[in-house]
Parts: sequence; structure tokens; C-alpha cells
Amino acid sequence: MLTIRSHSHDYSVDEYPSLRAALESVLRSKGTLFLIDEAVLRNYADAFDGLVPEEKRIVIKASEEQKSFERLTPVFLDLLARGLKRDGLLVVVGGGVLQDIGCFIATVLFRGVRWEFIPTTLLAQADSCIGSKSSINIGSYKNQIGTFYPPHRVLLVGEVLRSLPWDEIRSGLGEVIKLQLIAGESGFNELMSDLNSVPPEGDWAVISKWVRRSMAVKIPYIEEDESDRGIRNILNYGHTFGHAYESATKYAIPHGIAVLLGILTATYLSVRLGLVPASHYQELKKQLMSWCHPYQAALANADRDAIFKAIRHDKKNTGDTVNCILTRGVGHMEKMKVDFLGDLVPAVGEFIEREVG
Amino acid sequence: MLTIRSHSHDYSVDEYPSLRAALESVLRSKGTLFLIDEAVLRNYADAFDGLVPEEKRIVIKASEEQKSFERLTPVFLDLLARGLKRDGLLVVVGGGVLQDIGCFIATVLFRGVRWEFIPTTLLAQADSCIGSKSSINIGSYKNQIGTFYPPHRVLLVGEVLRSLPWDEIRSGLGEVIKLQLIAGESGFNELMSDLNSVPPEGDWAVISKWVRRSMAVKIPYIEEDESDRGIRNILNYGHTFGHAYESATKYAIPHGIAVLLGILTATYLSVRLGLVPASHYQELKKQLMSWCHPYQAALANADRDAIFKAIRHDKKNTGDTVNCILTRGVGHMEKMKVDFLGDLVPAVGEFIEREVG
Repeated sequence: MLTIRSHSHDYSVDEYPSLRAALESVLRSKGTLFLIDEAVLRNYADAFDGLVPEEKRIVIKASEEQKSFERLTPVFLDLLARGLKRDGLLVVVGGGVLQDIGCFIATVLFRGVRWEFIPTTLLAQADSCIGSKSSINIGSYKNQIGTFYPPHRVLLVGEVLRSLPWDEIRSGLGEVIKLQLIAGESGFNELMSDLNSVPPEGDWAVISKWVRRSMAVKIPYIEEDESDRGIRNILNYGHTFGHAYESATKYAIPHGIAVLLGILTATYLSVRLGLVPASHYQELKKQLMSWCHPYQAALANADRDAIFKAIRHDKKNTGDTVNCILTRGVGHMEKMKVDFLGDLVPAVGEFIEREVG
Repeated sequence: MLTIRSHSHDYSVDEYPSLRAALESVLRSKGTLFLIDEAVLRNYADAFDGLVPEEKRIVIKASEEQKSFERLTPVFLDLLARGLKRDGLLVVVGGGVLQDIGCFIATVLFRGVRWEFIPTTLLAQADSCIGSKSSINIGSYKNQIGTFYPPHRVLLVGEVLRSLPWDEIRSGLGEVIKLQLIAGESGFNELMSDLNSVPPEGDWAVISKWVRRSMAVKIPYIEEDESDRGIRNILNYGHTFGHAYESATKYAIPHGIAVLLGILTATYLSVRLGLVPASHYQELKKQLMSWCHPYQAALANADRDAIFKAIRHDKKNTGDTVNCILTRGVGHMEKMKVDFLGDLVPAVGEFIEREVG
């Protein structure tokens, strides 16, 4: 379907009609081992049974705690004990946590081993599966360790989304919405119209369409600036605030919904800085806030200090200013340095006080 | 002095007249932290004192055990607790073990942080400091984890070699000899003439000359094939056997001397396979074996099964054959698949039986 350029190796995104068909295709390689999300294996046991032998499965319970540096050791040792070789293949089946673990391991095992990825959440399909990044926690530090090493192949399977809780779909739609806000008016309007007129729980063709459209927006950014030192920063829209909201609420807010709240925050701040008229914020709030329900309540109750501390300690920030992606309107995001105490703290405080809850 | 191309970033090799001068140059960067080999700090305390504050020093005792994945966690946490930032600088001062630890950490911390390297052994100066590789142990598996990420700058300081035990210098000369064997007759003959006519313990100008000449041989290989999938394999000359001799003797043989014994093994095997006349092996043995003294005794007494098991499990080998760098004469090395049971085992057994001890 698609080929994506990367510094380490080009890779493709291929669509499969079923998880079974995707698994059959990866088993054509010799020396294949699997890292599988426990919940996916439970929900799709039929796809694995009789095809992927037990001794080739390493099953991982996806959690924020699991994607820590300290917990990687037993996974490495398990892969080595089961005989993974440098010319072997690691197949990762799961969402973002499995992707982070699998990508990190594949980057450094034998200084790089082939891996293929079957993303099983909307967040992973529409956003994280391309772009090469892994993020790993260590001690109390979140996402401070990581690598750039894309899968050698992404295998997209629509059916695996059907067992997801609706909140997980909504969370994925957060990143889908972010990407269309970056793309421009026409994409964003078409997306919101699709989302509002069709009940997406029932319409997987619509979801699949927006998975593809999301990738189409993201690909030029990751091809031009894979290492995220320049233009790719734009994709961080909503994330400086979103990450802080997640960590200050101890991950009570799903990632994509935290990003939506972060986008509203960035827009509110952009109004305060005179970059965009207040009407733009009001319009966006009308369209996006309902997708955040009921998680905005967790933000309203979150500890303000914890939020501001998290923003300051975001790995992208140094000094008295904070790098934010701000907006001059749909399709016009810009990276700017914002004065932390003078501008950011009062605007974010006011946003949470007046707009959320 | 030199600039080297790399997939991740080009880097330079600069010479400094003293360790103090090198440390002064890295301190010009803001946010610098140091990983320092304990023995180097002890021997050159004067260079650090009054210049590098205690709180910027993380001191590591260099050992094979220390360069394990499990032991990296406290080092990461120490760097984060001391406030290393993504725009900071990690300066690594030490030999191969410190390089492996520092390189691995710099690759994955913040998905890549700037690091500079002051190599303090001849092995590190003449060979490992360029070429981008890190190797980390995990559990009982040696060097199975690693990355490609060169330092952003190599700082060469001749004086730090003077406190090294003579065995460490000899070990470094093992790789120096290997590189000139690869380069060709004229370089190899000049080197052996230098080494035999000048007592190198006293002549640091000669050592420095061969550090530079070693780099000159290595650079085209690492620039053309940084990821070691093709022509760079040639630099592995002597290593398939050398690594096995190290591990089978529990690292009683210094690395560079194990490589010399490995080169003699590869040459002996090459004679057996009809690639090179027996006289070539005899000539090389006459020139190199004295440099191995008295470590060849450890090889003579090593457990044969442990040696063959290590050769089979070398990460570069799969199946019934073993990839070896063999020789058709000085300057004419070739990668070939060798039948493990039919050719390799009898030749290596005979070499150790008849030629070593």
C-alpha cells in the first residue's frame, strides 16, 4: 500500500483482511518470534491457535509500568533463550506499549534485528506505527529513554479494532483529529462531518478511511525530519499540555483525549498571545470538548502544581521558556518559545478554571 | 585532525597535548556530565581536580560485569538525577568498557544525546573509538545488545597511555597489527620493523604514529559500511577465534592478544583450506607469537568444547557453517563460509595442539 523512507531502512504499510492472514504472512519468514499483548491474544485466540506455536509466543500485559527499562531484561533473556538470531524476525502484536517495548528491543538486540508490527489500537494504527519512535520509562522518569527504528513492515488489520472499548477508539480519534487540524480546513471539516454524521462504532469503513488519511498527513513530516529536530515538532501539537495532563492525573485520561484537551489549551494560549481570534477557540471548543467527556473532569480536579511541574520537566524544555506548538488557525501551527511564568502558567490556569469541568 | 562520516552524524578526531587540555575543551559546553573510569581518575587526579567538580563526575570501575544491561539502570538514573538534559553533553573518559557503556547510554537517552570520548587505552585509541559500535552483555549473553552511535568528537591524548601496564599496550598493538595486516605488505612491514627495533615502552611518538596509521586503515571501512553488513566484516579478521579464546579462558587473555592468536588460527585454517602457502603461516607465527607470550599457555590449557561452543554461538553465525575472515596473504583477507565440523574444528584443534603452548 505505502512505502515510507527512513534513515535506518525504508518500510511498507500493508493491509490484511484479517489478523489470521497477517500472521500467516509473517510466518513465511524463518526464525520468527512474537511479542503479543495479552488482551489481544485473549480476544483473538482463534487467529493464533494452530498457527503460532506456544513456544514462539512471549505474552506481555500492556501497562505503563511494563514499558520500563528495568522490566526489559526478562523480555530480552526470553527472546535469546528461545533462540532469536540476528537474521530472525520479531513480530509485535499490540498497541503503543507493545510497540515501545518491541521497537526498543529490536533496535538494540544484535545492534538491530528485523521487526514487523501489527498495531491493534486506533492510536497505534493511525499514528504511532509510523515514525520510528520508541519511548521507555526508567525509575520515575517517563519516556526519557528511546530510539528511532521503524518496523520493517507495518501490517494493518481493520478487524482488530472491533473489540476495543469505545474510549480507546475515542482516544485514537484524538490523534486523528490532531493530524487533520494540522493538515488544514478541508481535511478537518470532512473528518468532523464524518464523525458527527456517522456513528463510528458501527462504521469501520469510516475508521479505516481516517487511518489512511492520518498516515498521509504524517508521512511527509517523518520523512523530512525523522529525528524530530525541526518540522516534525509540529506533530507535537497538543502534546506538551496533553502529556502533563496525563501524568498529573496518573494516566486517568486516555492519551488521545489528553491530546484533545492539550489542543484546546494550546488554542486558548494562542488567543491570549494574540495569534488567533477568540472565535476560533470557541468554535474548536464546541467541536472537540464533547469528545473529551467525561475525562475533562479529571483535568478540572488535577493538581495544578503537578501539571506545571510536568510541563517544565518535559524533555523538550530547557530554561525559563517552554517550547509550545501554537496555532494561527487550522493548518497553521507554529513552534514558539512561551514565557513560562509570565504567559503559560496564567493562561493554562485560566483555561482549566474557566473552560474545563 | 580528522573528520569521519557516519549515518547518525559526522564526527572529528582531535589531538590534545594533555588530559587537562582535553577536559578544558569539553567544559566549554554547558550541561556537561562525565563518566570516568575509576583507574583513570586515580592515575590522573591532577587533571580533574579544580576543573571538573565532584558533582559532575560519575565514576565507574571498568569490568566485563559492569557493561551489562542490568547494571546500566543506576547509571541512567544518576545522569538524570544530576540533571543531564537533551541539549547537554556526556563526556566519557576511559577504555573499551567505558566506551560501551557511554555509547549505549548516549544512543538511547532522550533518543540520542551528544557525547564526546577521551579514550585512555591503546585499544580504544587505535581501534574502537571510531566505528560507532557499542556492545553490552545481558544475563550470560555477551555483547548481544548494542548500538551504532559514534561520539560527536574523539579527543586523543597521548599522555594517558603512559600509565598503562605493558600488557595493555601489547593488547592494543594486537589490533594495530591486525589493521596493518589488512592494509598490506608495506604498512605491515614498517610496523613490525618499528615495533622490533624501537622499545615501544619508551617511544610514545612511535605509538602515536601507529594510532594515526590504524585509524587511516579503519576509516574507509567504517565510512563505507558502518552497519557492518559487508566490507567492514573484514575488520573482524582474527575475531571469531579471538572472541572464543577470550570467553573460553574467562577473559584471562587480553583482547588484542586473543585477536593475534585468532589471526594465527585464521591463517593456519587458510593454509589447510589451500588459500595460502604454509610458509606464509610460518613467517607470521615467527613475527606474532612472541607478542602473545605468556598468554598462549592459557589457550593451550583452555577447554576445547568451550572454544567450539563459543565459535558456534558467535552472533554472526547461523547454521552448519561459520563465517570466517580468511587470508590469501597480507592485504588479501576474504569472508568465507567454513564447514564447522568438517574443516574448522579439526584445523583449530590441530592449531592449538601443535602450534600453541
